[in-house]
Amino acid sequence: MANMELWFTELQNENLSIGLRIRRTLHSEQTPYQGLDVVETVQYGRMLVLDGCIMTTEQDEFVYHEMMAHVPLHTHPNPKRVLVVGGGDGGVIREVIKHPSVEKAVLAEIDGRVIEIAKEYFPGIAAGFGDPRVEIQVTDGIRYVQEHPGEFDVILVDSTDPVGPAVGLFAKEFYQAVYRALKEDGLFAAQTESPFVNQDLIARVFADVRDVFPQTHLYLAYVPTYPTGMWSFTLGSKRYNPLEPQPCRVRGTKYYTTEVHRAAFVLPPFVQEVIAG
Amino acid sequence: MANMELWFTELQNENLSIGLRIRRTLHSEQTPYQGLDVVETVQYGRMLVLDGCIMTTEQDEFVYHEMMAHVPLHTHPNPKRVLVVGGGDGGVIREVIKHPSVEKAVLAEIDGRVIEIAKEYFPGIAAGFGDPRVEIQVTDGIRYVQEHPGEFDVILVDSTDPVGPAVGLFAKEFYQAVYRALKEDGLFAAQTESPFVNQDLIARVFADVRDVFPQTHLYLAYVPTYPTGMWSFTLGSKRYNPLEPQPCRVRGTKYYTTEVHRAAFVLPPFVQEVIAG
Repeated sequence: MANMELWFTELQNENLSIGLRIRRTLHSEQTPYQGLDVVETVQYGRMLVLDGCIMTTEQDEFVYHEMMAHVPLHTHPNPKRVLVVGGGDGGVIREVIKHPSVEKAVLAEIDGRVIEIAKEYFPGIAAGFGDPRVEIQVTDGIRYVQEHPGEFDVILVDSTDPVGPAVGLFAKEFYQAVYRALKEDGLFAAQTESPFVNQDLIARVFADVRDVFPQTHLYLAYVPTYPTGMWSFTLGSKRYNPLEPQPCRVRGTKYYTTEVHRAAFVLPPFVQEVIAG
Repeated sequence: MANMELWFTELQNENLSIGLRIRRTLHSEQTPYQGLDVVETVQYGRMLVLDGCIMTTEQDEFVYHEMMAHVPLHTHPNPKRVLVVGGGDGGVIREVIKHPSVEKAVLAEIDGRVIEIAKEYFPGIAAGFGDPRVEIQVTDGIRYVQEHPGEFDVILVDSTDPVGPAVGLFAKEFYQAVYRALKEDGLFAAQTESPFVNQDLIARVFADVRDVFPQTHLYLAYVPTYPTGMWSFTLGSKRYNPLEPQPCRVRGTKYYTTEVHRAAFVLPPFVQEVIAG
């Protein structure tokens, strides 16, 4: 093995791939929901892979997790109860509980194995699971949302791609259930893929969220291990305007600042066109 | 051949690669300076490859070319004489001549074959070469800069990666020559790789430019076919502040707007740290 080069390759779509040189495979299993692998990459450290798709790496995880959590949470003046749907690696929850106002942060993850593996192999990402404000529910996120009307200030949908177990998280019925699960001034955000290669999905999700929420906005972040590196998030809000963020409440971020928050909503015309439909 | 899948793979560094499914190879040659290939990708249309590195594609070229040209040109109140060093595909020149104030745009490209191939295979990118304000010089850009003191309002360094023929374009002596080739209120910008994987290079270039120019700024753009998708440009200016852009003078852009200009200078803390040195 000494001179053998190992590469992990993700087929990002049928025409596009990313390759990462790896030192070794640390774990590999088939859960009831998906294939789950942990590999050690040379470029980005340890990497979590679900059904062959890169979920997160030690070195670049801060971008996605900070932007998924802090943009919505800084849009709300006083977020107390937060729900994360998906996000079994714990990275979003870790950021959520940095907000002093948060009293309860529920993680509704369908695949308990993701949580267990994150604790074992990604302790830096799963760092919030021991916090007393965090409640872990190994359950179907869609059902959890349906069964908890009016409970949350902020809901964060940290899903896998819209195939397999996550399909229902990209449906209009789900956004309607999210609306009902939010308090009267609540808001939510979801990861919604890349404007360079997923225009149809983004256009449809944006239109669906706009049908359900009075305010809908798209924002962007640089995620090097996701297809094209340009990643989008769709935010639906009942009352608060994400373009007017609250003063920054968190320290030690590597990506998020109030200025980055505002800049993330500045969309190049080709992205504006995608959501103009 | 009917059922054979062809893939182009770029080894972006020793640990990272991008793969693109291709329909066919349209051209392949060894010029006196570098390997030059044109392939037709399924995702991004035709693609220009130099020494195995992706230079540009039909579908995503607008990002790099607009941001390389319009950010510096909108920093200057009245750019008349512009020099592009490298940029043989013509994409930057095409954007430069959209500015009504520009009277002369010189392209100093060392490899004439890049220009010829761009005209033949990328007419949409090479669209500005017939403009009477454009002067093409097939020559060493470093020597051209040295031999034209005080001539230019804006210089744009559209180079390949800092290996092979482009090494000298990343040296402090070159930035000093650029300073001399600019008028007393001139400014320049150069492409300077990715903050996720080229921190050392960016830190060194930024420090060198800061030693030469009174104002130095880094700005960012999403380029999906470059490593990590997060690309940086370093701008050095004798007088004008890029954070106070002129009103937009160009129409029909797909990436650039005045708001995108401002947002491109908003750096996440991990990027601020790279250039803080």
